[in-house]
Amino acid sequence: MTQPAYLRAAEMTDLRTMLDSARRPILVGVAGDSGSGKTTYTQGIRRLLGNDMVTSIPLDGYHRENRAQRRRSGRLPLDPANNHLDLVKEHLRALRAGKPVEVPIYNHQTGCFDAPQIVRPAPVVVIEGLHALYEHLRPLLDFTLYVDADRDVKWRWKFERDVSYRGHDPSELEDEIRRREAAYKQWIDFQKTSADLVVKIHESNLEQLAHQRNDGGLPENCYHMEIVIAATQLPLPALTLPVNLNAAMEADSRPFMLSAVRSRYWGKRVNVAHIDGVIPLEAMQRLEEEIMRLTGISRDLDLCLVNNAAQNSTMRLAQSLVAWPFLGKVRALLQEWQAEDQA
Amino acid sequence: MTQPAYLRAAEMTDLRTMLDSARRPILVGVAGDSGSGKTTYTQGIRRLLGNDMVTSIPLDGYHRENRAQRRRSGRLPLDPANNHLDLVKEHLRALRAGKPVEVPIYNHQTGCFDAPQIVRPAPVVVIEGLHALYEHLRPLLDFTLYVDADRDVKWRWKFERDVSYRGHDPSELEDEIRRREAAYKQWIDFQKTSADLVVKIHESNLEQLAHQRNDGGLPENCYHMEIVIAATQLPLPALTLPVNLNAAMEADSRPFMLSAVRSRYWGKRVNVAHIDGVIPLEAMQRLEEEIMRLTGISRDLDLCLVNNAAQNSTMRLAQSLVAWPFLGKVRALLQEWQAEDQA
Repeated sequence: MTQPAYLRAAEMTDLRTMLDSARRPILVGVAGDSGSGKTTYTQGIRRLLGNDMVTSIPLDGYHRENRAQRRRSGRLPLDPANNHLDLVKEHLRALRAGKPVEVPIYNHQTGCFDAPQIVRPAPVVVIEGLHALYEHLRPLLDFTLYVDADRDVKWRWKFERDVSYRGHDPSELEDEIRRREAAYKQWIDFQKTSADLVVKIHESNLEQLAHQRNDGGLPENCYHMEIVIAATQLPLPALTLPVNLNAAMEADSRPFMLSAVRSRYWGKRVNVAHIDGVIPLEAMQRLEEEIMRLTGISRDLDLCLVNNAAQNSTMRLAQSLVAWPFLGKVRALLQEWQAEDQA
Repeated sequence: MTQPAYLRAAEMTDLRTMLDSARRPILVGVAGDSGSGKTTYTQGIRRLLGNDMVTSIPLDGYHRENRAQRRRSGRLPLDPANNHLDLVKEHLRALRAGKPVEVPIYNHQTGCFDAPQIVRPAPVVVIEGLHALYEHLRPLLDFTLYVDADRDVKWRWKFERDVSYRGHDPSELEDEIRRREAAYKQWIDFQKTSADLVVKIHESNLEQLAHQRNDGGLPENCYHMEIVIAATQLPLPALTLPVNLNAAMEADSRPFMLSAVRSRYWGKRVNVAHIDGVIPLEAMQRLEEEIMRLTGISRDLDLCLVNNAAQNSTMRLAQSLVAWPFLGKVRALLQEWQAEDQA
């Protein structure tokens, strides 16, 4: 086993300043089904880099039809032909060149399109949507992420969100959910085979690690998450999560599982990180502070985005496990550009 | 979830000095099958407290029959009636009172008894053997540990040890192994139901956490270990294991799994810690240094016992997870005695 050549912390410093003066915005694509939690990971990057450093663009606005039109046509937004993907490509090209674009906006409450909005690229631009990693968009993206929630998890989330927050009719939604799964498999799911990083979300299975029976301590929204990433040598210093071993002994401890294994995924040599249960918030804060120290990003974490309900500590660790290799990729790109400029 | 009342590190300091002047030796019982790795955990306590602080006594010497006698009688040493357990009890009483005892010695090479040895109690005395937690011995013990290796693991180990190192005949050993399992179940196994801490040892099952297939990186002696301990509030400061998250991304990372869940075990409310794979040696060293800092034991770890082959890093973490609550128990006892002396 060769020792990884960790960067000294000093070499990572001031990533934020470097990003600010980079030759072009860095483009990230986040694909996955509707309701699979794509924005969570953009928020993770946002929390670590700073809100002002990240622009995110939902691809919902690029659907060809609004809700009423879809009802009449019977076509699903999952069908790539039912989206203005050429416009997405055009916009990505403009954003890469640092130019503002006029982003079409879909309103999930009304089911109609709102007036388009002018979006100026921040140093990091994230596109989030069903087709974000489609073949003709991928060459324009610097980092690609696929969010792959289990059907059960996804359907539960979609139901909760669309019925509780968006006021959809439950029985209509059930019909739609059933109808769209085949379309999802056909048009969306395959994108994970080419992503730099895949986040898999399952219901928690910590029960399996208990004898006789698990004896409580699991919060309601507890997931078993996998971070699947092509095994690589990132220019990143060692990043340590402090795991309090007393949690293994104390009566009031919260259950957790952490693992990393080497694996194959769609023929590629990958590493798979597993997270389940509750990672103490304190450990997460220390980890995020460590990331910011290593990247030279010095901001007050308390000023950052308020977590939404789904962002429990497992999710938060998953966010860091997504953001960290992304920051490594950013660092590698900036180094490459610097070397080219000096040549 | 109430916040555990962690001791400040200062309150743990100088455990070694306190132990040295304690009112009586602290007695530990380690039970489990022959070849299950009982001594490993005594060694873990030894490494942390210092070699001079721990006396260990194997109970093999208390067998009534030597190998030749057993062959003739057909009786197994697993049968408690075939052991001088009353003498063990008498010796435990003497050792608790700080008195030396004359320990009978069984020689595994010759299969005969050697001359007995005078053993003077160190501040910590560990008895290791098949019947160490038997009912009439238990009240004399301050901390009890049961080592519960899976049959496959145990048999493999016993075979390797007895054939390779002790020169037994392989086919004879196979016969003996088969014959003794029922005796083990009847006379030994049940002791785990009353132990303060149970270490369970399985073959590694990290394969399950891979997609398609695990892609290497598992060393030969890799185990899935469980530390089962009655959930309690130990007077221990927080003890953190630094987990390098880059291991989840790097091509040359070693696979691992860490988990803690609440569970039931023989009707008791317990916590179960799971360890599998490879915990980097560096992290283990930092953890052991942390333990010694917290306990005020300042010694050079390099001067400690040389690890034997079975002591890979997973085992070493298991050793710490056994030693740590034991140190908590020691601390609690010393505090209790101090309070009594002051009253």
